Amino acid sequence: MGCSRREFLMRVGRAGGYSAAFLTMQHLGLMEVPEAAAASLAIEPGSGKGTRIVILGGGIAGLVAAYEMGKAGYSCTVLEARERPGGRNWTVRNGTKIEFKDGTTQIATWEDDSYFNAGPARLPSIHKTVLGYCRELGVPLEVEVNTSRSSLLQSDAAFGGKAIEQRQAINDTRGHVSELLAKCIRQNVLDQEFSKDDRERMLTFLRTYGDLKPDYSFAGSDRSGVAKFPGAGSEAEVLRAPLDMHSLLNANFWQGMMFEEMLDMQATMFQPVGGMDRIPYAFAKKLGDVVQYSSCIKEIRKTVQGVKVTYTDTKTCSAKMIEADYCICALPISILKTIPNDFSPRIKQAINDVGYDSAYKVAWESPRFWEDKYNIYGGLSFVVNGPVNLVWYPSWKLFSETGVVVAGYGVENYSEFGKLPNVAAKLDASRAAVEKLHPGCGRELKNPMYVNWGEIPYNLGSWVGRAPSYVTGHTLEYYEGPYKEFIQPDDRIFFSGDHCSHIIGWQEGAALASHRAIRMISEQVQMAKVSGTTKLQQG
Amino acid sequence: MGCSRREFLMRVGRAGGYSAAFLTMQHLGLMEVPEAAAASLAIEPGSGKGTRIVILGGGIAGLVAAYEMGKAGYSCTVLEARERPGGRNWTVRNGTKIEFKDGTTQIATWEDDSYFNAGPARLPSIHKTVLGYCRELGVPLEVEVNTSRSSLLQSDAAFGGKAIEQRQAINDTRGHVSELLAKCIRQNVLDQEFSKDDRERMLTFLRTYGDLKPDYSFAGSDRSGVAKFPGAGSEAEVLRAPLDMHSLLNANFWQGMMFEEMLDMQATMFQPVGGMDRIPYAFAKKLGDVVQYSSCIKEIRKTVQGVKVTYTDTKTCSAKMIEADYCICALPISILKTIPNDFSPRIKQAINDVGYDSAYKVAWESPRFWEDKYNIYGGLSFVVNGPVNLVWYPSWKLFSETGVVVAGYGVENYSEFGKLPNVAAKLDASRAAVEKLHPGCGRELKNPMYVNWGEIPYNLGSWVGRAPSYVTGHTLEYYEGPYKEFIQPDDRIFFSGDHCSHIIGWQEGAALASHRAIRMISEQVQMAKVSGTTKLQQG
Repeated sequence: MGCSRREFLMRVGRAGGYSAAFLTMQHLGLMEVPEAAAASLAIEPGSGKGTRIVILGGGIAGLVAAYEMGKAGYSCTVLEARERPGGRNWTVRNGTKIEFKDGTTQIATWEDDSYFNAGPARLPSIHKTVLGYCRELGVPLEVEVNTSRSSLLQSDAAFGGKAIEQRQAINDTRGHVSELLAKCIRQNVLDQEFSKDDRERMLTFLRTYGDLKPDYSFAGSDRSGVAKFPGAGSEAEVLRAPLDMHSLLNANFWQGMMFEEMLDMQATMFQPVGGMDRIPYAFAKKLGDVVQYSSCIKEIRKTVQGVKVTYTDTKTCSAKMIEADYCICALPISILKTIPNDFSPRIKQAINDVGYDSAYKVAWESPRFWEDKYNIYGGLSFVVNGPVNLVWYPSWKLFSETGVVVAGYGVENYSEFGKLPNVAAKLDASRAAVEKLHPGCGRELKNPMYVNWGEIPYNLGSWVGRAPSYVTGHTLEYYEGPYKEFIQPDDRIFFSGDHCSHIIGWQEGAALASHRAIRMISEQVQMAKVSGTTKLQQG
Repeated sequence: MGCSRREFLMRVGRAGGYSAAFLTMQHLGLMEVPEAAAASLAIEPGSGKGTRIVILGGGIAGLVAAYEMGKAGYSCTVLEARERPGGRNWTVRNGTKIEFKDGTTQIATWEDDSYFNAGPARLPSIHKTVLGYCRELGVPLEVEVNTSRSSLLQSDAAFGGKAIEQRQAINDTRGHVSELLAKCIRQNVLDQEFSKDDRERMLTFLRTYGDLKPDYSFAGSDRSGVAKFPGAGSEAEVLRAPLDMHSLLNANFWQGMMFEEMLDMQATMFQPVGGMDRIPYAFAKKLGDVVQYSSCIKEIRKTVQGVKVTYTDTKTCSAKMIEADYCICALPISILKTIPNDFSPRIKQAINDVGYDSAYKVAWESPRFWEDKYNIYGGLSFVVNGPVNLVWYPSWKLFSETGVVVAGYGVENYSEFGKLPNVAAKLDASRAAVEKLHPGCGRELKNPMYVNWGEIPYNLGSWVGRAPSYVTGHTLEYYEGPYKEFIQPDDRIFFSGDHCSHIIGWQEGAALASHRAIRMISEQVQMAKVSGTTKLQQG
């Protein structure tokens, strides 16, 4: 690289920060633009040498930060209150203890290969950053079946309460919609919408779309399943009579029916083989003693040179302290509320303003009646009425005898489920939802485990309340609400976690938030070098 | 069981055959009705003792017949022309030789763990019989991803030929349909269809269904994918502009778009880990030397006592003969055309009347650009124009470096592909389809393998032409066409194969056809015992 070009890059660097220089280098063709952005951070190896980083919280955000900054030569320490990595990424197995803040405990007494993911439990294929880490760290993935046409929809208000296969609700609805629209088109109601040619092509399309008869009526379709499967000899397929639109409107299946079309719920999706916590454990293995477990943070203070964090080693009950040049604070905001700190007033206010949702899951060990009797392999069934609205079937160890089924996943705050008087009532509601979908099978459920993230120490919630007050507006530069505070550093303290991203409640958001924090710190460090000052002189 | 009851069952048996007696036993509560019909045949163990069965063809139909009849004590011999079991169930791996009847050969020079299923390649979860055998025989299954919202649709007639993500085509189409139907409802065009209440509920439904704005317009949805994924900090999601309906009509994506809703293509689907031929090899392992390989059938003759089959041992070039009490003829009809036989005139005519389709597949080894650059993990993309209309991505060894992609699967007879002048032109067409979907990636494809079942000895086709002349009508008792002949035995010869079922081209059909043949033979054998005659006296 010639000298004048380097000078130009320096000037760009001074004016726009390190990432501006980096982008300019890409434009000049000096660096190859990565095909998939993925986990690539492109921070110069060794550029962090001599700079100490304290990372608060060993969830995905904290682990990603330590892993990437370690690659760049930074000296990182992760303080994690628990004796395991992962935070909300937590897999419950035989022997796992769930302890609520009120001291109540549950211990899983399950078969050795039974498990469920109490926190995140699926990886969309669009979450390239987390998938990239799975590849990089050698975490084997398998398909998480998020959609199954055999899974069910149930409403008390229609079909006598009988659960309906999703294939039937989805395809009969499409049939009716197509028939109705074809009727309007043939009555020339939409002539101003279409050219004559398009009008005819719309009718042809609707016949395929809704599986309509040549007269554009919908009279059922084997897409909706059959009353009798075809077989050998004289065993011809027998169609089901279509569900009528009035009953479908009564049923109000729509939320469950459209679930599979949510961008981050769309097939193909994945899960780590053996449990979601394979991911944090893979990071932890790479990080070694960079992660200090049993380290419960007591105070976060600013210093002239950077940051000072005091914490308790809960193994030895001893008070400890660590100083660093920068801090990545990847704790839940719910926990920040409980820690004395030197944050600036805007951050204190933002912490105060944020409310956390309290997600719950109820999981049961059970013989796989959903596979044996219902042909359901993975996917989710939805229950319209009642406190428990979904049943999520395992996508792992399909065809084996026993499985762990999640009967109930939602939030406790402001929900019907949260208002139930006690755990027993919640477990009853969970079993009742299964019974609505699979009459007679509710009694098969055993060994329940109930996670309520609002009651879990070191979390006290699952994610920031998704109320519009947290992030308002989708403009690039302007945010109201607490979000805009957390995405800006407070002196040498940089916040991270899914709450510093637009992908709240997902590991991808946590990882990308740490990438961003790392880039900001790296820019500061690099700019200090470009401007000829040293880190310490800057402080 | 009391004597009078046994006598009653005998009388039922005499009047209605063995299966009538069996059904009566179920009704009387004497036997438990199996929850899932699956592979359960409920033929009395040992009831076939002393009866010899010759089974022609070691495909799934022949293997299932031998396996089940063996359980019941019959003495079975399977004559299989090849040196492997499975027939059309054939997995091509490194070193596999594909030999056409004209003598041209291809040998796969692939990585050790590359493979593709030249014949059947997916197991729907509704195919309980085959899934039941996988469980019974210990064949591990994994999810076959048959639907991916990231896979593509491409048409030369729209979007400048640019491939469109299925999520976008599917959800934008639904948005437009919902908007149009809402417009009609709000113009009161369909008032005679709905009560006032249902009219309002339809509008509410359509807003959810199409992701419409409060004014019932469709202005895009993140279900359709995004122009920019959400990220951390200021990286908000940016929506895509919706595809317009006129262009979607030009594109004519409908067949590919609705593929996932075909009953036997609906998620959840499976494949054996390591290749579909794990199934026939598992049967063959159980059957041991019941299966005689390299046995090319030369004549099928009736005898006074049963059946006589002459064949050539192609290893030793020696003529051989086998006699049996019954024959299950599980050869393709295309092959029956070439074998001298004593069939009755109605069967000879039926054989003559049947034409076979000639399915083909083209498979390539390639770096997994569809995963790395397109986020496509399994599923199929569809190409509207041109001789090759689909690309099927592997669902196995996801995230590994190399994969085998099927670029082209269809029939050669009466198709544009079949009219291409030679293999080179067919491979070019295959590569061109990939290039349309993934510009610049066509050149990544290497080591093609081309299977054309019409050219494969011992098959000479893939399945009976699905023309309505084969099976007409869906009434239970009345069939026109050759089908009704093959589902009735010809003296002691019983036909089997997917062509004796309503599930043509699927292993499930083959298995169920053999179950039916076995039940018919078993009835004859049991009735002979009930009536006090012996098998040989009957002959």
